[in-house]
Amino acid sequence: MRAARYYDRKDIRIEEIPEPELKPGAVAIDVAWCGICGTDLHEYLEGPIFIPPKGSPHPISGEEAPVTMGHEFSGTVTALGEGVTDLEVGQNVVVEPYIIRDDVEVGPGRSYHLSPDMNFIGLGGRGGGLSEKIVVERRWVHPIGDIPLDQAALIEPLSVGHHAFVRSGAGSGDVALVGGAGPIGLLTAAVLKAEGLTVYISELSEARKAKARETGVADEVFDPREVDVAERVRELTDGQGADVGFECSSVPVVLDTLMDAVRPNGVIVNVSIWGRKPEVDMPTLVLKEIDLRGTIGYANDHPATIRLVQEGRIDLAPFITGRIGLDGLVDEGFDQLINNNEEHVKILVDPNA
Amino acid sequence: MRAARYYDRKDIRIEEIPEPELKPGAVAIDVAWCGICGTDLHEYLEGPIFIPPKGSPHPISGEEAPVTMGHEFSGTVTALGEGVTDLEVGQNVVVEPYIIRDDVEVGPGRSYHLSPDMNFIGLGGRGGGLSEKIVVERRWVHPIGDIPLDQAALIEPLSVGHHAFVRSGAGSGDVALVGGAGPIGLLTAAVLKAEGLTVYISELSEARKAKARETGVADEVFDPREVDVAERVRELTDGQGADVGFECSSVPVVLDTLMDAVRPNGVIVNVSIWGRKPEVDMPTLVLKEIDLRGTIGYANDHPATIRLVQEGRIDLAPFITGRIGLDGLVDEGFDQLINNNEEHVKILVDPNA
Ligand SMILES: NC(=O)c1ccc[n+]([C@@H]2O[C@H](COP(=O)([O-])OP(=O)(O)OC[C@H]3O[C@@H](n4cnc5c(N)ncnc54)[C@H](O)[C@@H]3O)[C@@H](O)[C@H]2O)c1
Ligand SMILES: NC(=O)c1ccc[n+]([C@@H]2O[C@H](COP(=O)([O-])OP(=O)(O)OC[C@H]3O[C@@H](n4cnc5c(N)ncnc54)[C@H](O)[C@@H]3O)[C@@H](O)[C@H]2O)c1
Ligand SMILES: [Zn+2]
Ligand SMILES: [Zn+2]
Repeated sequence: MRAARYYDRKDIRIEEIPEPELKPGAVAIDVAWCGICGTDLHEYLEGPIFIPPKGSPHPISGEEAPVTMGHEFSGTVTALGEGVTDLEVGQNVVVEPYIIRDDVEVGPGRSYHLSPDMNFIGLGGRGGGLSEKIVVERRWVHPIGDIPLDQAALIEPLSVGHHAFVRSGAGSGDVALVGGAGPIGLLTAAVLKAEGLTVYISELSEARKAKARETGVADEVFDPREVDVAERVRELTDGQGADVGFECSSVPVVLDTLMDAVRPNGVIVNVSIWGRKPEVDMPTLVLKEIDLRGTIGYANDHPATIRLVQEGRIDLAPFITGRIGLDGLVDEGFDQLINNNEEHVKILVDPNA
Repeated sequence: MRAARYYDRKDIRIEEIPEPELKPGAVAIDVAWCGICGTDLHEYLEGPIFIPPKGSPHPISGEEAPVTMGHEFSGTVTALGEGVTDLEVGQNVVVEPYIIRDDVEVGPGRSYHLSPDMNFIGLGGRGGGLSEKIVVERRWVHPIGDIPLDQAALIEPLSVGHHAFVRSGAGSGDVALVGGAGPIGLLTAAVLKAEGLTVYISELSEARKAKARETGVADEVFDPREVDVAERVRELTDGQGADVGFECSSVPVVLDTLMDAVRPNGVIVNVSIWGRKPEVDMPTLVLKEIDLRGTIGYANDHPATIRLVQEGRIDLAPFITGRIGLDGLVDEGFDQLINNNEEHVKILVDPNA
């Protein structure tokens, strides 16, 4: 079968590799669609980061570059390994793409995603969504009912937004400010809106401001070059400030704005990944008794995320801005996102095309 | 009566001023002891900070420099204003030294200390503990039963530690690492120990390490020059890390160490005051899903703090390291703390001496 394999920085090859073998307790899946993620771009431009470099196999998967890429994917079950009795061949599914030790307990209330050496399918080994087929342990496979397979490829980044929402402790009626309307900011906003929050977004890019408006995920969209965002949020909240902020830009000034914009005892969830240690407005964190919370990936979020889409409370279709085949991965996918990032939310890859 | 009045940086004068007038709803107190706090030193060396400078009256108190200093004090009730029926003349009390607007609701669950323009008695006006007498609104007066008046002067900083404990959400059986064993770190550790936590302290100064040991507030005391503190905490917690960390040094590397030392999903309470924006290890905050929480002052903490002392679960006597009269405030108080800070925890001033 064909697969996109990461050899090294700027060296991704579409190659023929053997089909994965079905094992007891695992599920064989024909991949339908796989999204390209900012993390994939980082691996391409500056990696290997999550990907175990040649000579340094990952402690759980035992694999090293070259590895198959792709962690945001949907597909159809084609075979069930011994002992798997609660799924059916022909069912459409998504994968929660974790590589986690066998002895780590998975289930409600467990932070299995914070266990030592955690990595992701499609980065740390164990195949990936940028290939025709994959075999995945049962525990990471989630049925999606009648959600269209293309939209289902966005369940993974939507779960990142859902986990950020859960981490915030916020709920219906609360006011949120989301800093940055890239794919992660937009999908986080979509979850917040579906959960009944009032959502404000701060974003610089024209294309992304437009996307935030036309998808309906924001009640208002602010451009920090045009308004004092924190001041505007206070005006809209009787001088109080937002209940919760979500940092989705990895730009220090955006974190500053969130510190300014949330109310006393407010919460800020930091979703973005920082390449270095930013200066943080600790004086304000202290004087306003803000809670600044990290969030990474998801844990026990997929079922609730899938439900939000299935019940029609989130429409993922408008976030799909391109569709390509596997051969176009670098030219029409990565390069397009690197050069025209603002025009895109999610480009989907059909590994069979 | 005599009072220590702050005119400007390095200009504190012991002067004769009129006695304060008793008003309806207020309580007249003869001050017994008043502690000197790091905040007072900052005002002396680098201020005015909290103190409203001449020409800029505080929006609530309406006062400006010169103001009477001292916010950590105990005393005895000498008269009750009209309408005050639940205290008695002769009762010993401490003051929760807030200047807060009349219309801000005070009571359990209320974050009244985060209300706009909050300031402190003894900094923002309304008299201070560094004078013979003071008149205070009833709502800020807390009876202390039979707690000795000298120890009671430490209830205020102890309440800072209690509030930090409450903010952490930690409880009996949890493991805490306290970074910095100045007065605030030591008193925070005292609360944690009394509440049944295992307490580790990291501190550089020999005198303060000794104090942490001899007061029994720490199960172990680490010197970061001698051990890798985070590594040592992991060894002592089956590789997990501390449940909660308390930043009490305002030194960036200590915050880094706490990020390293707490477990995944751990909590760090930042007690220290930052004069600038430090670089914060956001990558670790995200990957470990840490909660970093600000804490300032106290709110609804005094009754519980007083109870801890009254029940003998905290002995404040060992934290009193000096006693002086009002005339010695600068020479024997401030200068002593500036030059021999490490040897001291709390110097108490008797404003009648
Ligand atoms: N925590 C997790 O599990 C997780 C998962 C996936 C991605 N991420 C991280 O989330 C972050 C966002 O991802 P993305 O793919 O959406 O990135 P992105 O770069 O596409 O989006 C960032 C957005 O922020 C906007 N922005 C920049 N400066 C701004 C400013 N001053 N004010 C307002 N907006 C501004 C940009 O215009 C851009 O639209 C990244 O750091 C990514 O690594 C985290
Ligand atoms: N949040 C609040 O309401 C509140 C109230 C009062 C004080 N504070 C703040 O709390 C902080 C502590 O106050 P304090 O009076 O105890 O200050 P302090 O300066 O006396 O104590 C700080 C301690 O940290 C130690 N330290 C310095 N570098 C260290 C390192 N690398 N490793 C370990 N220890 C190190 C010092 O030796 C010192 O003992 C200050 O920033 C103060 O402004 C906050
Ligand atoms: Zn991704
Ligand atoms: Zn103080």
